[in-house]
Amino acid sequence: MVEPANTVGIAVNPTPLLTDELDIVIPTIRNLDFLEMWRPFLQPYHLIIVQDGDPKKKIHVPEGYDYELYNRNDINRILGPKASCISFKDSACRCFGYMVSKKKYIFTIDDDCFVAKDPAGKAVNALEQHIKNLLCPSSPFFFNTLYDPYREGADFVRGYPFSLREGVSTAVSHGLWLNIPDYDAPTQLVKPKERNTRYVDAVMTIPKGTLFPMCGMNLAFDRDLIGPAMYFGLMGDGQPIGRYDDMWAGWCIKVICDHLSLGVKTGLPYIYHSKASNPFVNLKKEYKGIFWQEEIIPFFQNAKLSKEATTVQQCYIELSKMVKEKLSSLDPYFDKLADAMVTWIEAWDELNPPAAAAAKA
Amino acid sequence: MVEPANTVGIAVNPTPLLTDELDIVIPTIRNLDFLEMWRPFLQPYHLIIVQDGDPKKKIHVPEGYDYELYNRNDINRILGPKASCISFKDSACRCFGYMVSKKKYIFTIDDDCFVAKDPAGKAVNALEQHIKNLLCPSSPFFFNTLYDPYREGADFVRGYPFSLREGVSTAVSHGLWLNIPDYDAPTQLVKPKERNTRYVDAVMTIPKGTLFPMCGMNLAFDRDLIGPAMYFGLMGDGQPIGRYDDMWAGWCIKVICDHLSLGVKTGLPYIYHSKASNPFVNLKKEYKGIFWQEEIIPFFQNAKLSKEATTVQQCYIELSKMVKEKLSSLDPYFDKLADAMVTWIEAWDELNPPAAAAAKA
Repeated sequence: MVEPANTVGIAVNPTPLLTDELDIVIPTIRNLDFLEMWRPFLQPYHLIIVQDGDPKKKIHVPEGYDYELYNRNDINRILGPKASCISFKDSACRCFGYMVSKKKYIFTIDDDCFVAKDPAGKAVNALEQHIKNLLCPSSPFFFNTLYDPYREGADFVRGYPFSLREGVSTAVSHGLWLNIPDYDAPTQLVKPKERNTRYVDAVMTIPKGTLFPMCGMNLAFDRDLIGPAMYFGLMGDGQPIGRYDDMWAGWCIKVICDHLSLGVKTGLPYIYHSKASNPFVNLKKEYKGIFWQEEIIPFFQNAKLSKEATTVQQCYIELSKMVKEKLSSLDPYFDKLADAMVTWIEAWDELNPPAAAAAKA
Repeated sequence: MVEPANTVGIAVNPTPLLTDELDIVIPTIRNLDFLEMWRPFLQPYHLIIVQDGDPKKKIHVPEGYDYELYNRNDINRILGPKASCISFKDSACRCFGYMVSKKKYIFTIDDDCFVAKDPAGKAVNALEQHIKNLLCPSSPFFFNTLYDPYREGADFVRGYPFSLREGVSTAVSHGLWLNIPDYDAPTQLVKPKERNTRYVDAVMTIPKGTLFPMCGMNLAFDRDLIGPAMYFGLMGDGQPIGRYDDMWAGWCIKVICDHLSLGVKTGLPYIYHSKASNPFVNLKKEYKGIFWQEEIIPFFQNAKLSKEATTVQQCYIELSKMVKEKLSSLDPYFDKLADAMVTWIEAWDELNPPAAAAAKA
C-alpha cells in the first residue's frame, strides 16, 4: 500500500526557488488543513485561495502562510458582468486565481493532495520539481527515448537532430498522482480498488501534434507564456457538465503551445492523492462530456490556427470562433462557452493590461 | 555504479512464451559468450546468427542453444545478385536474419548486451517483457499520462476518449539500455563518463505523427505486421555511412506504422549495455549522417503515403520512390539506397512468397 510522506520535522526549505515569481492557486470549499503537511515546501510562497460555494463560510488557513482569498462576492465585485465566465460550485473557479495573479509562474493544487514519497521514502517537493520542469526546455519536435534530455545523467540519444537540441521554452508542467489515480466515473466504478503505486521516475515532453488529458490537480505553468489560455471553462452551477474544466484547458493550451512552439511536460512530480471522489456524483457531472469528447477531441486535433495569431490572446480568440462554428451543433452549451472564452480574454486583458505586460516582458 | 545481473543459478525458464513463434536474431563478428548469462531466458528459443566479416572465422555458440548461422557466403548463395542489399562489415547485416526467419516475432540483440537488474536487484527477462509489449495493444492517437494503460495497475485516465480504448495492434517494442547509453559520437566525446543509471518503470506508445530514434540493440517486432519495412539499409563496407542502419529502419517503420494504424512502444525492458564503442571510429562512420539527418528527418515527417498503399510492401515501395525523388539531391548515396530498398522487398517476397504469407495469415 502506498502512503503519503510524513513531513513532521522537515524544516522549511531555506532556499526555495522563485518565491517572488510564483503564486500557488488553491480552489477550496473547506479548511486548508492539508497545507500543514506542505509547510516545508510551500510556506515560503504566496497563496491565492479561490473560495468556491457559500461566501459566508469562513475558510481556515494554517498560520504562517501568506495569502489572499477571493470568494464569489469578490469575483463579482472585481469582474462585474464579466464574472459570468468564472464557474461557480466547481473547482473550475480556480482560473480566477490565474487571472488576478501578477506573478510569472502558477502552481495549482487540490486540497486533497498530500505530499508523496519517492521510492527511497523521501518526501517529494512537488513544487521544486515543477519549477525545474518549467525552467528547462522542452523537445516537442522529435521523441527522445531516454525521456527528458535536459535532466542530470541524461541527454539526447544517437539519431536526435542537433538542430533541435536547444529545445523550446516550457509553458506547462503536468504532475501525476500516487494512490488514487485520476480516473473517470466509469473506470472508478469498474475498478474501485485500483491504486496507483507505480512511481515512474521520468519527465517527458508531449510531442507536437499530440493531445493529452490535462489534470488540474497538480499543475504548474508559465503565466507569461500561456496564462490567457488557461481558462477552465463553464462548469458546475447552471452548466450541463462538470469535471471537464482541466480537460478543456488542456486541449486549448496544447493546440496553442503547438502553434506557438512552446513545450508541455508531463511526469514528475507526484503528489499523493488522498480521496476518491464519489463515482456516482462524478458520472452525473461527466456523462455529457464522455459523449461530447468523442467529437471535441477530433475538433481540437484538426484545429489549425492562422499565421496571424502570434499571441496567446489572438490564438484563443481564434479558437473561440472555431468552437462557436464547429461545436455549437453538438449542443447550445458550446455557443455559450465560446462567448465565455471571449469574455475571459477581455477580463484577462482588463486585469493584465497589455501595456503592463509589455513593460514586464 | 550500475552493474549487470548475475544469472548464475537461475534455472532456465520452465514456461517461456511463444518459443515456436519467435526467432532471436544476433549479428556478430565474435564468439557469443554473452549468451551464457542469457541462458535462463533465451535458451528455449531458436537463434538466427548473422556472421559479419570474414566467413572463414569460426563463431563459437555456447552449448545447448539451437541455432542456424549465416555468413557472407551463405547470404550471397541464398540471395544471388540481390545480396547487394545486405550490408557487409556493419551490424546492419542483421536484417538478413529477419528475412530468412519463418516466425511471427523477432527479437534482436547485440552481443555486448548483458542482463540488466531492476531496482529490486532482480534479473530482467528482457524477452518476456518485449513479448508482453507486443501482445498488448498500443494507443497512438491520444496520450495517456499514466503511461501504458494496458499494464497491470494502470488504465486510461479521465478524459481519454472511450472510442480509442481498444487501441491498435503493436508492431514494434523498443527496449532501452542501462549503463552505456546509446549516444552519438559527439555526445560520447563530450560526456565520456556518463552512464545511464535511471531505471524508468514505464512502457509507452510513441504517438502517431512523432518520429523517434530507434536503436537496434534491444528490439522486438511482429514480422507479419511490419517485417518487410525492417530493412537496415546500406551501411559499412563500400558505403559512406555507418551507425544509421537502425535509425533508417526506425524512420521507415514509424511512417508506415502511422499510415497502417499500428503501434510502436518504447521503454521497458532494459538490457545492460557493457561496452562503449570507440567515439573516434563512430564519428567517422556517423558524420555524414549527423549532417544528412537534418534533412532526412523533415523528409520523413512530411512523407505521406497514398490510400492505395495498404500492405507494408506497397508502403515501402512508395517510400523508396520518395527517397529517390527527394533525397537523391542530398547525395547520390540515396539513389543507391532507394534501389536497395526495392531489391530488399523483392528478396523478401522471394523468401516469403505472398501465397505462403497469405496462407499463414
